[in-house]
Amino acid sequence: MLQYDYGSGEERGWILSESNFDSGMLGKGESIMALGNGYMGIRSAYEESYLQQKRNTFIAGTFNKFDGHEPTELPNVPDVAEMKIVLNKEHFSLEKGVIETYRRNLHLDTGELVRTVVWQSPLGNRYRLQFRRFVSLENKHLTGTEVEITSLTGSCTIEITSGINGQLTNTGAQHFREGEKRIYNRQVLEMLQTTTESNIDFLVYSAHHWRIDGEEILVEPAATMSRRRIDASYSYTAAEGQTVSVEKLSMYYTSRDLQTQDMATAELRQYALETSTAEFAKGYHALFSESRNRWKQYWEDVDIQLDSPNVFDQLSIRFAQYHLLIMTPAHDTRFGIGAKGLTGEGYKGHSFWDSEIFILPYFLYNYPDLARGLLEYRYHTLDGARKKARENGYEGAMYPWESGFTGEEETPVWGAANVVTGTATKIWSGFIEQHITADIAYAVWQYFTATRDDEFMDRCGSEMLFETAAFWASRVEWDEAKDAYVIKNVIGPDEYKEHVDNNAFTNYMAQWNIATAAAHYLDIRENRPDVYERLNTALLLDERYPKWLELADRLYLPAPREEDGVVPQDDTYLSKPVIDITKYKRASSVQTILRDYSRDQVIGMQISKQADLVMLMYLMNDRFNEEVQESNWKYYESKTIHDSSLSMAVHSITANRFGDREAAYECFAEAAAIDLGPNMKSSDEGIHAASLGGIWKSIVFGFGGVHMKDGELHLNPRLPESWTRLTFPLMWRGKRLTVTVTPGELEVRSDSAGEFTILSGNKTYAVNGSLKIKL
Amino acid sequence: MLQYDYGSGEERGWILSESNFDSGMLGKGESIMALGNGYMGIRSAYEESYLQQKRNTFIAGTFNKFDGHEPTELPNVPDVAEMKIVLNKEHFSLEKGVIETYRRNLHLDTGELVRTVVWQSPLGNRYRLQFRRFVSLENKHLTGTEVEITSLTGSCTIEITSGINGQLTNTGAQHFREGEKRIYNRQVLEMLQTTTESNIDFLVYSAHHWRIDGEEILVEPAATMSRRRIDASYSYTAAEGQTVSVEKLSMYYTSRDLQTQDMATAELRQYALETSTAEFAKGYHALFSESRNRWKQYWEDVDIQLDSPNVFDQLSIRFAQYHLLIMTPAHDTRFGIGAKGLTGEGYKGHSFWDSEIFILPYFLYNYPDLARGLLEYRYHTLDGARKKARENGYEGAMYPWESGFTGEEETPVWGAANVVTGTATKIWSGFIEQHITADIAYAVWQYFTATRDDEFMDRCGSEMLFETAAFWASRVEWDEAKDAYVIKNVIGPDEYKEHVDNNAFTNYMAQWNIATAAAHYLDIRENRPDVYERLNTALLLDERYPKWLELADRLYLPAPREEDGVVPQDDTYLSKPVIDITKYKRASSVQTILRDYSRDQVIGMQISKQADLVMLMYLMNDRFNEEVQESNWKYYESKTIHDSSLSMAVHSITANRFGDREAAYECFAEAAAIDLGPNMKSSDEGIHAASLGGIWKSIVFGFGGVHMKDGELHLNPRLPESWTRLTFPLMWRGKRLTVTVTPGELEVRSDSAGEFTILSGNKTYAVNGSLKIKL
Repeated sequence: MLQYDYGSGEERGWILSESNFDSGMLGKGESIMALGNGYMGIRSAYEESYLQQKRNTFIAGTFNKFDGHEPTELPNVPDVAEMKIVLNKEHFSLEKGVIETYRRNLHLDTGELVRTVVWQSPLGNRYRLQFRRFVSLENKHLTGTEVEITSLTGSCTIEITSGINGQLTNTGAQHFREGEKRIYNRQVLEMLQTTTESNIDFLVYSAHHWRIDGEEILVEPAATMSRRRIDASYSYTAAEGQTVSVEKLSMYYTSRDLQTQDMATAELRQYALETSTAEFAKGYHALFSESRNRWKQYWEDVDIQLDSPNVFDQLSIRFAQYHLLIMTPAHDTRFGIGAKGLTGEGYKGHSFWDSEIFILPYFLYNYPDLARGLLEYRYHTLDGARKKARENGYEGAMYPWESGFTGEEETPVWGAANVVTGTATKIWSGFIEQHITADIAYAVWQYFTATRDDEFMDRCGSEMLFETAAFWASRVEWDEAKDAYVIKNVIGPDEYKEHVDNNAFTNYMAQWNIATAAAHYLDIRENRPDVYERLNTALLLDERYPKWLELADRLYLPAPREEDGVVPQDDTYLSKPVIDITKYKRASSVQTILRDYSRDQVIGMQISKQADLVMLMYLMNDRFNEEVQESNWKYYESKTIHDSSLSMAVHSITANRFGDREAAYECFAEAAAIDLGPNMKSSDEGIHAASLGGIWKSIVFGFGGVHMKDGELHLNPRLPESWTRLTFPLMWRGKRLTVTVTPGELEVRSDSAGEFTILSGNKTYAVNGSLKIKL
Repeated sequence: MLQYDYGSGEERGWILSESNFDSGMLGKGESIMALGNGYMGIRSAYEESYLQQKRNTFIAGTFNKFDGHEPTELPNVPDVAEMKIVLNKEHFSLEKGVIETYRRNLHLDTGELVRTVVWQSPLGNRYRLQFRRFVSLENKHLTGTEVEITSLTGSCTIEITSGINGQLTNTGAQHFREGEKRIYNRQVLEMLQTTTESNIDFLVYSAHHWRIDGEEILVEPAATMSRRRIDASYSYTAAEGQTVSVEKLSMYYTSRDLQTQDMATAELRQYALETSTAEFAKGYHALFSESRNRWKQYWEDVDIQLDSPNVFDQLSIRFAQYHLLIMTPAHDTRFGIGAKGLTGEGYKGHSFWDSEIFILPYFLYNYPDLARGLLEYRYHTLDGARKKARENGYEGAMYPWESGFTGEEETPVWGAANVVTGTATKIWSGFIEQHITADIAYAVWQYFTATRDDEFMDRCGSEMLFETAAFWASRVEWDEAKDAYVIKNVIGPDEYKEHVDNNAFTNYMAQWNIATAAAHYLDIRENRPDVYERLNTALLLDERYPKWLELADRLYLPAPREEDGVVPQDDTYLSKPVIDITKYKRASSVQTILRDYSRDQVIGMQISKQADLVMLMYLMNDRFNEEVQESNWKYYESKTIHDSSLSMAVHSITANRFGDREAAYECFAEAAAIDLGPNMKSSDEGIHAASLGGIWKSIVFGFGGVHMKDGELHLNPRLPESWTRLTFPLMWRGKRLTVTVTPGELEVRSDSAGEFTILSGNKTYAVNGSLKIKL
């Protein structure tokens, strides 16, 4: 098993550190130590190759379909991270010889990955190697590697073969047509490839510089072009103790980039070549320094400090915030966030409700413009959602369960094998997991309530709110027995229940969506006549409104049971048998229950992947009193395996609300362990983006007690027993606040002038500069 | 470097044996030890995977285009050879631990590959492993592996994961759409994939059987399906000293198979599943035994025995004959032989003139039906050749330089990089290396002369002969200065000369093609009126004949120079500067001259990749006297780098003709070393099919002195100094002869009744049963 720790001294809490090498567990480090900047993401496969490695580089938004039978996915673009290193005719590989020292550190503060090794080769030669790598936050097209090699035993002939490798696939699916390859001035390598279906041109450049003891020298490469590959091969003989450093700088451009999308291929190529050449001339250290400055600024904005005896708590929030930045395409609102960010092939780069419900809040309270950008992505894909509604016989916009570039449904239809029948399992989410449409409307409204950004609402948000409501209004059906409108045949967030009627989460969210649209309709008709005029013409609001009004009142909302306050998850859940699931809750990997029971058997029992009611009460806190929240939490927690990475953080927040601080901390720790914990395989396909948003939420919304209600900011913090202090920033109505919580006191400071109000313990406080409240 | 030897005792000369393991040199063994049966070919990558491996399985004739920009190629089909083996939680890999003993033997007599290893794991556990693998010569769809594992140190938990892997590509190009995967009865794995452009369905099946000390036991697998992959995972704990054997049997079917091509996919699937299941039930040993019997029959037909102090000579011809069988799609005349057989991605499975000039003679004198089959392949592709002629403004049939399934031109347009300019080199062969058209006509005529097979000529051969002649007649142009028809702007076999006029090889072969067609026209008009009628209507023979007659007489044929008998290779060759090329001739890899000179510089000097005049004199022996042959051999040999694998064998044969036995033997040894020699990289992309045909030719046509002239069989053997005896079979006019040559005597025996004649030393002998001639 790999060992991870967290730095020491000044770097304590800032470093994710890997202290040993295990070629059987490469996926873990590749994912959690991945580099990126929202434009691109590179898995941290080592420079030298290993059999079990997974080399992945993705560029946000560049979706392609392998063929008409497969959903669109982010293609694995040509790799530049690999470098073959031969030292005195021996291949450098940590699987051979002896590793005398090993350390790989991901510096969360600077975005640099640094590996230092002292390696004894099979023939007994000893070398010190240091590898540094970054993906620039300053120039989003750029990544750099620096390799330093020092022979500790005699002179050393260093041979390095390094270039651009376009032979990679997405687990066998090749998304590129091979294009031209060139070498300029025997130095700059170029590869042009074009996606097969979406016809996006990719231009990749690499150049190498050599230094001896810091002095740049010219080493002439031999260049080789083979199929989908271009390489430069270098050879240099260094004296004992001399440090040879080789830097490799690379850049990626695509014809989907906003700034170059209107260029012809030849023009783009010229532009990309010139820009790359100019950047390459700066060298690794200058380029890294530019990027480091941007990281510094980021942490000045967002850093959360917490005093916990367990430094892992501190690291886990920084780890989450590191990944939340590198997964987010802040540069381009046409792109969403993938469920694995840009760190793996899992979920094909598709966006789920994870974005709106788990990740967007982080940006809403730190960089509201980025939160708006994420919602604009859903606005860009509104036509795809309208198409899905139309094709399913509904009105308005029916958002896809999995979303790519166009907003059409991208959920694969077939999943893993059922060993007993020998056939694949059908995935129903793309057909009937429909709550996503309300989740997006919910996020639009959250954003609007927190920011009062009328410009966004006029341009995008109102239309999204109305079109999602229109979908639900066409989706419901009348149930005579219930004397209410109902929603039949859905999957809620709990995917261990399929084809259920009146899923509580779905019904409540749909009702909220419709009611909010109805209220907003009245608001704009009254207050924003131009917008009303335009949207009424396009969306027939006047015609739709009466139905919305009726549905807001008569859509069936399952109520708490009288005897225990438990809200039925759906029409049949509570009548199903209960079994002891302790074994599966404690299992070190997910879905172990499917080894003992078929999927149909699981569907037939009170077993949940995640708890819909806990999720609902988190989002609709104000509709359920504390007692009901507690009884539902307790009832459903015991039936929930947490086989979804979305589950634990929400359980943490809700537990805190009804005062179970111990459970809240335990759930937080479990959430933090999803990527950083001892399970060495859980992150193989990439990090868990929603869970990382969840870690931030459990700290700021859970322990920090941040809650927005009726447009007001509430702060009701409850720290875990062991924490003595928590300080976090919060952007509220254009001001950057700093909130500090200690066991006895809450302090709110603002960095800019002007009074504002907060609520704590249901009292309203006016804040001007700073305020302390005794808890 | 890997060490190869050749067996000892009874197996001497029958075994290609690898005595050490080198993970940096995997390509060599993968290619030269490849298995196959003409239907499919599997590179001999190890069961356990290594980073530098190249797993390839090809099925003849199943071409697909990755996209419209690439030529068609044989797709790398789903792999079944890989098996992951974990022993007491340690991955079996020869890169780790200690290899106590290692031996991998390719049994040329039985077609079985056997590897035995005693391995000490990193933790010090010791195991004996034996791997056996074959591709069936009896059931061409079938391949099997058997792994025997014995723990020498305590009990052992054996975990094996093995299945069907469709994630492989052709160096990055994926040719398959992912189809269904299934498991039947928890035992038989099934994968369906379809080529993206040619829409060929592939069905692959695998099943495993376990035995303990020979007794079959049931071990239940866990099955996993992932993207393009289906696996069964087994675990079993054996006692110390117990031998566990796991056999894996697999079958491939495609919708291009002759016997199933008219079935719908579902029907094919049903058929394939039933057939596979029935075969699997027989088990490895019974199935291998069936295949071994077919190999036995083969060697009874074709074995050549030679008494040489160097056992390598004996092995090299058996090695050649082994590969000549497994590369040849004897089951289906719609398919040709690839330049690398079915042993690698090199040349994409395309057929070149190698088939007709280098390989076909082997079959013509052993299995004439198979020689006819190879010609029928060219008949099946005649329409493609007509299309190429038409598109280039010519008449008749212009055969493609590289040929796939349709006969259209498949030569890639761009080749390797020029490091100086940074751009790719244009490959002109597909445009102007036109002698292939005459080469095919030549092979038709050779076949007809040797067999007198009128049926083939009436059905295919005559049409091919006339259409190729028609091409040349439209290709020539009149040259006033030369007062002759000329052929401008071609590449001859010597590809180090491009865009030359009156390439001697091309002109002589074209003139022969036209003259032979003209004579054959007269023959069929006279003797086969029905055929004449049909072909005259279709091909306008009466109209074409006068031009053929004129061209047979007036097509420019470069004559030997008066001063030295040297025939100019083309109009400018002899006027180009000469340099010392000794360094490049001696180089251990090809094309080293291109490291010192640009391609254009090489084109501008008297430097040849292979010698056109030597090639021409081999094919047109009768048109040049012995003195002219010797002077041309000597002149051009000194300018020839032999950077083509087609070169050495022909130099051996021609040297023998003018009596230089030493040079003949040296060239033979060089030819045999192309795949079997110490160059560890030369066979990475696959074996050299033409060279293997060349090895047979240099023995039978060269040392054995077999030559056909005017339909008569001539035998003028000249053994190398060191050989004391050579015995080879020869099929001649329906009789299987056995020819034995010793330094003083030639013996010819026939296994069937009836008198026939041979010529030796220009004397005619009647043979009835057997005949001895003093030499």
